[in-house]
Amino acid sequence: MSYRLVLLRHGQSAWNKTNQFTGWVDVPLTEQGVQEAKHGGELLKEKNVLPDIVFTSLLRRAINTANYALDEADRLWIPVKRSWRLNERHYGALQGKDKSEIREEYGDEKFMLWRRSYATPPPEIDPDDKYSQNHDPRYAGDPVPEAEALANVVARVEPYWQSDIVPELKSGKTVMIAAHGNSLRAIVKMLDNLTEEEIAKVNIPTGIPLVYDLDEDMKPIKPRGEYLDPEAAAAGAAAVAAQGQSKK
Amino acid sequence: MSYRLVLLRHGQSAWNKTNQFTGWVDVPLTEQGVQEAKHGGELLKEKNVLPDIVFTSLLRRAINTANYALDEADRLWIPVKRSWRLNERHYGALQGKDKSEIREEYGDEKFMLWRRSYATPPPEIDPDDKYSQNHDPRYAGDPVPEAEALANVVARVEPYWQSDIVPELKSGKTVMIAAHGNSLRAIVKMLDNLTEEEIAKVNIPTGIPLVYDLDEDMKPIKPRGEYLDPEAAAAGAAAVAAQGQSKK
Repeated sequence: MSYRLVLLRHGQSAWNKTNQFTGWVDVPLTEQGVQEAKHGGELLKEKNVLPDIVFTSLLRRAINTANYALDEADRLWIPVKRSWRLNERHYGALQGKDKSEIREEYGDEKFMLWRRSYATPPPEIDPDDKYSQNHDPRYAGDPVPEAEALANVVARVEPYWQSDIVPELKSGKTVMIAAHGNSLRAIVKMLDNLTEEEIAKVNIPTGIPLVYDLDEDMKPIKPRGEYLDPEAAAAGAAAVAAQGQSKK
Repeated sequence: MSYRLVLLRHGQSAWNKTNQFTGWVDVPLTEQGVQEAKHGGELLKEKNVLPDIVFTSLLRRAINTANYALDEADRLWIPVKRSWRLNERHYGALQGKDKSEIREEYGDEKFMLWRRSYATPPPEIDPDDKYSQNHDPRYAGDPVPEAEALANVVARVEPYWQSDIVPELKSGKTVMIAAHGNSLRAIVKMLDNLTEEEIAKVNIPTGIPLVYDLDEDMKPIKPRGEYLDPEAAAAGAAAVAAQGQSKK
């Protein structure tokens, strides 16, 4: 008996395109992002990987990625659960800022630390900043972070994984999670039991479903799972990694 | 204390456009249908009628209507529940057939009976017909009808209304239901306690949110509710009524 999990990272968003730090800011997909989501859905259909339930963050770029992909795969009708615990890492005071400008202002070392450090969050956002989510009704009653490192994301994803996602997997359902670079990296770190150094090197490409078959203990039968389009995934991961290195 | 319910009928679908009986066949929205949904969302936002939870059928024309409208209203992140009990009336053997041809073949009387009779369903569909949902995975474990009259729709909507929708209303949430002409008519008949003759005359326009404020007994404070754009709703209802009368 094995259990099937599908991870899907959202495609290009408006701020991916304009090179701004996004985090919890709720920007839409671009037309390219929509096409990536649809292509992800075509892969699900083609490979007959058909989700029985979908989890999403509370951000429209992940929600719409799930919707376009599932519509394409003829699975738009499956049950849906959403949680802020699957949101992207909160980028603190960097949210809304131009990545190149931040790099020039603070230098390469700090820039890379904020992007890739496991435990060091970026500077905290002012609760009254226009890009703070402090007054966003979708988080009413939930704590809104002021900045997160990947460690913080792992800490908030893990309880939800145990309480809500594992039971659906154990019931035999194929579970899809449509989310973000860092919330998915948090899950990959947990599943593959990666060290801080190992997860720092993991880049998840956008729009290509990553399938994990899990054993009774929710451990991957094949470490690191399998992308439904491995060649495109390798190219995509390289592109994500390059993004962190280039000045533009 | 009052409770707020919002009904939203999906916009134009592919088979509305080609004049075919649709029922449970899962056809997509047309581009016009997408625009109707977005406009419905703009009305929600403009009038500050903001759903806290959305219910949909299992059919993509209703699901996508909810998605486009909620995205426009900045409420895509709310919880979602779906049920076959909110599906359109099953049109039996007429599903997939051209409306004009059926009218010519069977005559005006039968045509109008099948369209508007409260209790007489159209002929049953063959379970092996390509437009039967007998083998559709989304209904696995649920009974798939072979034909329904509006009375059958009322009978299947009512238990779900009581078990799933009323508790959300009573908890104080603004509840949106994105569904179909006949599943929404079933709800309107229950809410307004209409007779069979009265509900026969009710036409719900597409894409215009219909708001009911309900008292403690789930009775409308204002009978028949209020459309967020009453003028467009009147024109839309007249158009729906005319559809039933014209030969084309």
